[in-house]
Amino acid sequence: MTDAQWMARAIKLAAQGRYTTEPNPAVGCVIVKNGELVGEGWHQQAGTAHAEVHALNMAGERARGATAYVTLEPCAHYGRTPPCAEALVKAGVAKVIAAMVDPNPQVAGKGLKILEDAGIATQHGLLEADARALNPGFIKKMETGLPLVRMKLAASLDGRTALKNGQSKWITGPDARADVQRLRAMSGAIITGAGTVLVDEPSLNVRQSQFPDPYPLPELRQPLRVVLDRRQRLGSDNGFFQVPTPAWVVSHHNDHRDFPDHVERLRLGEKDFLKTLLKKLPVNSVLVEAGAELSGAFLAEGLVDELVLYLAPTLMGDVSRGLLALPVFSDMAQAPRFTIKDVRRVGDDLRLTLEV
Amino acid sequence: MTDAQWMARAIKLAAQGRYTTEPNPAVGCVIVKNGELVGEGWHQQAGTAHAEVHALNMAGERARGATAYVTLEPCAHYGRTPPCAEALVKAGVAKVIAAMVDPNPQVAGKGLKILEDAGIATQHGLLEADARALNPGFIKKMETGLPLVRMKLAASLDGRTALKNGQSKWITGPDARADVQRLRAMSGAIITGAGTVLVDEPSLNVRQSQFPDPYPLPELRQPLRVVLDRRQRLGSDNGFFQVPTPAWVVSHHNDHRDFPDHVERLRLGEKDFLKTLLKKLPVNSVLVEAGAELSGAFLAEGLVDELVLYLAPTLMGDVSRGLLALPVFSDMAQAPRFTIKDVRRVGDDLRLTLEV
Repeated sequence: MTDAQWMARAIKLAAQGRYTTEPNPAVGCVIVKNGELVGEGWHQQAGTAHAEVHALNMAGERARGATAYVTLEPCAHYGRTPPCAEALVKAGVAKVIAAMVDPNPQVAGKGLKILEDAGIATQHGLLEADARALNPGFIKKMETGLPLVRMKLAASLDGRTALKNGQSKWITGPDARADVQRLRAMSGAIITGAGTVLVDEPSLNVRQSQFPDPYPLPELRQPLRVVLDRRQRLGSDNGFFQVPTPAWVVSHHNDHRDFPDHVERLRLGEKDFLKTLLKKLPVNSVLVEAGAELSGAFLAEGLVDELVLYLAPTLMGDVSRGLLALPVFSDMAQAPRFTIKDVRRVGDDLRLTLEV
Repeated sequence: MTDAQWMARAIKLAAQGRYTTEPNPAVGCVIVKNGELVGEGWHQQAGTAHAEVHALNMAGERARGATAYVTLEPCAHYGRTPPCAEALVKAGVAKVIAAMVDPNPQVAGKGLKILEDAGIATQHGLLEADARALNPGFIKKMETGLPLVRMKLAASLDGRTALKNGQSKWITGPDARADVQRLRAMSGAIITGAGTVLVDEPSLNVRQSQFPDPYPLPELRQPLRVVLDRRQRLGSDNGFFQVPTPAWVVSHHNDHRDFPDHVERLRLGEKDFLKTLLKKLPVNSVLVEAGAELSGAFLAEGLVDELVLYLAPTLMGDVSRGLLALPVFSDMAQAPRFTIKDVRRVGDDLRLTLEV
């Protein structure tokens, strides 16, 4: 086995955490001695052991003189767990190969330095692109202070979301709706608008029973559900707030509504409202599941990184409701352009993934 | 080589005529003697030799006692060329395997009967599905009297075709526009509306210089260009009529306009206008390249067999112009549903092929 093959194994291990580690990154670790695997592990959930700890526990005494392959530079700080760099030193590994250094510029290199100071050989950059692809939200947040923003949209082939009379159920099929569960589970928070809550009554939680991917933990993490209710149109008895997973309700005014304990109120000024909200969210990645107005506002302000568009193979006609409220463009050059990253059939529907 | 492999070769030969044989079907023929290819050919253009004639000419005396593989039952009638069934008899082949019988119920089996009456062994149905896929338009026309109708649409991801101010150029890229040349070349006729001619000034001919596929003949056949000008809004000096390939201009009234010689006037009543027009067209396949109103009318009347939708990876917003004028639906079950047959990237854009 080559270094790259061991690292590929670590990356595969890390990927198992992609629905559960938020707000931590997904990380994998493989420990190899004399060409043999002696330990491996992956980070499962924030607050539990890091990948390196799992792998070192498995390796035990065999870690001495071994090479550790980690998908991310080992941490150097005392958080909810002691720093992994020190654990690797203590275990006596001879060499550490990291796929990438820590994306937080204030921390980058500190973990490797602890190792080097202890006489351990280090290396980084192996399969870096694959390692980065594990944690696009974590990396964006560390590099810019803003979470990665995905936007989910669903429409007919002619870009319509509801008939003239408002009927909008079952435009896309059951497979597409189950696929959205995957997007929710990948996200630290889901943002919607009060209008969508009033009309569609979404719960915006992750329903394990409909989850289309295998996942190795008994429970999936529930994303923070954020409803923008600027004018406080929603009653505290709205079904959205009865769903027992954490939620934020955001408005421009003091909020005297009496919500259940798992619902937090946030007041934000009108200026740079959406961007300020994104900065305040304690998450790395956000899914916007909203109507034409709010979705259009996120796009118009250039806050969207990725668009996931489900297209149902039907035509609804120009009298039906449109997908996106955007500013009036006087020239095609003003319209946002995307790169098609992925196209996939999901049941009878089509899923396009687009990057700004 | 098995029978199926020889037939596959005949089908591949036939496919070379797919842009040029209309209104004839694309046909291929392979003649095999003692396991060796002795002749092959394909039909190139209406009025020229049929596939069997090319193959028999190549085989010469070696056709005697050979097996002929043809993608379509050999013709039994005197048209612009003598019947191929008789040519095969005269050449002394021992066996004829046809992929499919003639789709015209009044002719089906007659060619094979001529062969059988002459003591030639016959067989049919080998790779029939592939052979049928060569000539969907010819088959539909023979079976129903109506040509196959393809509809080309192009829009942004949110189903928009022009900005509020009417700007619509360059929504899709050059590769998608070149790909449309392929659809035109596959079609016996192209239908558009007077509104599109006035606004977009399309020529609707096949431009060889932009043709994205290799083609084995020096010239591509030009489709008949049909403009629906019910209220005679177009001047006879319109650039559309100056393009020197055949055109029809269709209206509800006597037409006193003075067109160039290659333009024919057709008067049709308002009742079942589109269907009557389709029946009158001397072609097997039609491409509709029209605006929201006319495209919507074809769809609403259930006249469309295949939809080819080019999606540009951009968003234009709800104030931009819509793709299709359809009736108001009160229930999603009324909206036309399609099956996704093919999804392909064409340059930066996406091409969806959908079947009703």
